[in-house]
Amino acid sequence: MRLRRKADTKELLIAQQELVELEPAKHKGKWKELFGNDHPIHVELGMGKGKFISELSAAHPNINYIGIDMYDELIRRAGDKAVAFRMEQGGGVPHNVRLVRWNIEQLEEIFDEDEIERIYLNFSDPWPKKRHAARRLTHPAFLHKYKKVLNSRGEIHFKTDSMTLFEFSLNSFADEHLRMRNISLDLHREGTPEGHIFTEYESKFVEQGMPIYRCEVLVGEEIGGR
Amino acid sequence: MRLRRKADTKELLIAQQELVELEPAKHKGKWKELFGNDHPIHVELGMGKGKFISELSAAHPNINYIGIDMYDELIRRAGDKAVAFRMEQGGGVPHNVRLVRWNIEQLEEIFDEDEIERIYLNFSDPWPKKRHAARRLTHPAFLHKYKKVLNSRGEIHFKTDSMTLFEFSLNSFADEHLRMRNISLDLHREGTPEGHIFTEYESKFVEQGMPIYRCEVLVGEEIGGR
Repeated sequence: MRLRRKADTKELLIAQQELVELEPAKHKGKWKELFGNDHPIHVELGMGKGKFISELSAAHPNINYIGIDMYDELIRRAGDKAVAFRMEQGGGVPHNVRLVRWNIEQLEEIFDEDEIERIYLNFSDPWPKKRHAARRLTHPAFLHKYKKVLNSRGEIHFKTDSMTLFEFSLNSFADEHLRMRNISLDLHREGTPEGHIFTEYESKFVEQGMPIYRCEVLVGEEIGGR
Repeated sequence: MRLRRKADTKELLIAQQELVELEPAKHKGKWKELFGNDHPIHVELGMGKGKFISELSAAHPNINYIGIDMYDELIRRAGDKAVAFRMEQGGGVPHNVRLVRWNIEQLEEIFDEDEIERIYLNFSDPWPKKRHAARRLTHPAFLHKYKKVLNSRGEIHFKTDSMTLFEFSLNSFADEHLRMRNISLDLHREGTPEGHIFTEYESKFVEQGMPIYRCEVLVGEEIGGR
């Protein structure tokens, strides 16, 4: 068995420099050059503390991951987590991950049309008040942005603990004529799917016995008849 | 105020003769002639004791309703209910209702292509065991039948108390590239919608505080990209 060790402070600081993109708008249309390969780009919008993207990127070395959140502190913690997780697995700084502090409202300023292939939305803020509906990350105004930057194989993978956000989101997808797939109203009901990666929130909610809602959206397949 | 009265036994027997179609296959392609008008035809598959179709048909005199179920006893009770409800409202035998005992598997033997405009599925048997999935009325094999008999404005209106049946149904609709609308994971959460008509089951479940799941499906609008 390979010896596992934890990253030290110096390694983490160096890794932060490699992982965090301070000026992401500069890479619009050129993320492939930054990663140095043609692998598909998957983006997590609202990555929080980064557990999900850290584990997912380790499991899929041939996909490039970009994690986006609004706060410096989250970017820093996600960077630490991504490095720490790889080192525990015997690896170094992950080459298929970049972390970005950015406002998702301006997504089109950092990604070109068709530049990415998948968007993950995990436990996004439900914004329960009706007057805040436009802030929900599955609001049609956001879906329009996602459609622009996703390519023809583009998918959105969405999970949440919020029944009201999930209901709102299903209707948003349907109203936008988007095809859904693998809709689940209680993801862990019959046991957790193999290879499933939990977010921090998800582990907590599942421990409490709360249902997790999930679905996938095929952005490239619009419903006809408009 | 108009005096209300209950139907007596003789009236009910006469009404049964007018309402119940004993040989529905004879009317395939000719239901409009039977109703004597060009009004759209809405069909409830699995009408049970008939409360829903009785009240709905009274509220919409310009739509023709056909209620279908498997058992003679249910047809008889639904007939009684339809007449009793109209009489309480000061009317006579409803002219926009017909009741049919038939196996939904053979739906195409009683309706021609494009002959009907809406299908109601209310609290259909969830058939929870996986090996019985093909019996669920939202199974793709049934959706194929519905598509044939529904016209280009065709809709399916589906409600259930079963989370697992609802989840299965959302995936069936999505897999069949059908567009959904007004998806609700707890229909009565914010109060019952105006003009809402309860089924027998629904009243009971709502009293118990259980959520009702509901959605509409626009059968005429298929998703492209196949």
